[in-house]
Amino acid sequence: MEKREMLYEGKAKKVFATDNPELCIISFKDDATAFNGLKKGFLSGKGIINNKISACLMQVLEKNGIKTHFVQELGGRETLVKKVDIIPLEVLVRNVAAGSLSKRLGLPEGTRMKSPVLELCYKKDELGDPMINATHILAMGFATREQINFIVDCAYKINDILKEFLLTKKVKLIDLKLEFGKTSDGEIILADEISPDTCRLWDAFTNEKLDKDRFGRDLGNLEEAYNEIYKRLLVKK
Amino acid sequence: MEKREMLYEGKAKKVFATDNPELCIISFKDDATAFNGLKKGFLSGKGIINNKISACLMQVLEKNGIKTHFVQELGGRETLVKKVDIIPLEVLVRNVAAGSLSKRLGLPEGTRMKSPVLELCYKKDELGDPMINATHILAMGFATREQINFIVDCAYKINDILKEFLLTKKVKLIDLKLEFGKTSDGEIILADEISPDTCRLWDAFTNEKLDKDRFGRDLGNLEEAYNEIYKRLLVKK
Repeated sequence: MEKREMLYEGKAKKVFATDNPELCIISFKDDATAFNGLKKGFLSGKGIINNKISACLMQVLEKNGIKTHFVQELGGRETLVKKVDIIPLEVLVRNVAAGSLSKRLGLPEGTRMKSPVLELCYKKDELGDPMINATHILAMGFATREQINFIVDCAYKINDILKEFLLTKKVKLIDLKLEFGKTSDGEIILADEISPDTCRLWDAFTNEKLDKDRFGRDLGNLEEAYNEIYKRLLVKK
Repeated sequence: MEKREMLYEGKAKKVFATDNPELCIISFKDDATAFNGLKKGFLSGKGIINNKISACLMQVLEKNGIKTHFVQELGGRETLVKKVDIIPLEVLVRNVAAGSLSKRLGLPEGTRMKSPVLELCYKKDELGDPMINATHILAMGFATREQINFIVDCAYKINDILKEFLLTKKVKLIDLKLEFGKTSDGEIILADEISPDTCRLWDAFTNEKLDKDRFGRDLGNLEEAYNEIYKRLLVKK
């Protein structure tokens, strides 16, 4: 496998072409951002940790029948993935009120809801990733009704699988952000990453935040939090 | 029918009890507001005009099989309606991009979309009536899945009926805001009002705005615009 030119650089990842047109290499960066990139920082080693955590969680999903872009963890900060066209949607599944959901509904952070909330946001930095719904997607025409239904069903399944898995590691899945992509043969699969950058993860007993909110809210101990998730998921006792 | 104590006063309407516990009187005010009440004005006679326009459109809907709170226009600024518990939802149906939808999606005002957009907003002034979706409603528990489906289906039907009717009056229905309420026996019916305060109405040929945007955007001729809608709907030639 030969790594070739960079195809894309985002806030937390770079994506490189390979000599196989169906495969890419994702390289996780050490940059930390919050508030749609307005707050910027750096956490040495975060890229390596997130690469391992995301690879672990993608494999948990694969074992449970979810199709993902994951092919093989390459070590360091890199993972080999299937090449996809990203669908410009952020799919958020929320089990407990926190962050923008708390603000939107006026619910204190930590409020457990009667049922999970699923939000769709239009991935467009210059618009601030606004919340939309299926009718906006159909009006813009970037996915069909069937594709939206598939993505929504899949997001709920992923939430159920990860919630259960993380609880065995004494971690509560508060919410998570997913992105999906289309492979060259039109199949929709989970893409992007699953890490403390894209999920809210609280200690199951103390409710201590073990995710990106430690950076966004200046709670300190960001490195310790990411390391703690890494240890709970990946270090065998 | 005896008019009794005021039950509620909103930005554009007062609601009074009557000697019949199942019926109320709506009284349309002359106040003009925009931006969730931040901009305030006054338009003498608006209440009377909106009362007539709303009564006219509610009757068009009733004739087409939509159940509404409308009972009888009482003259002046007052209409007799069925008493309902308002469901805290603003249901917006949008045929053409304008206002907040243009901002949200980055679409120029006037963009005709592939299919209508339907947005649900949580009616709560202190939160700024935030956009939500069915999963937020289920999580908060203020309506059931069946009730949400009924409201959404009904909103699309209302949009189709009014779009067609208004076009015969040479008016384009750009978007409209609906509110629904529950009667004492649990039936969900259309409530609130339908007027140039709650719909965007453009002249079918010139695209001249004939609605509340003339106030919000300081376009002038607000009175003429409301009178023009009144004349087209209600004055027989």
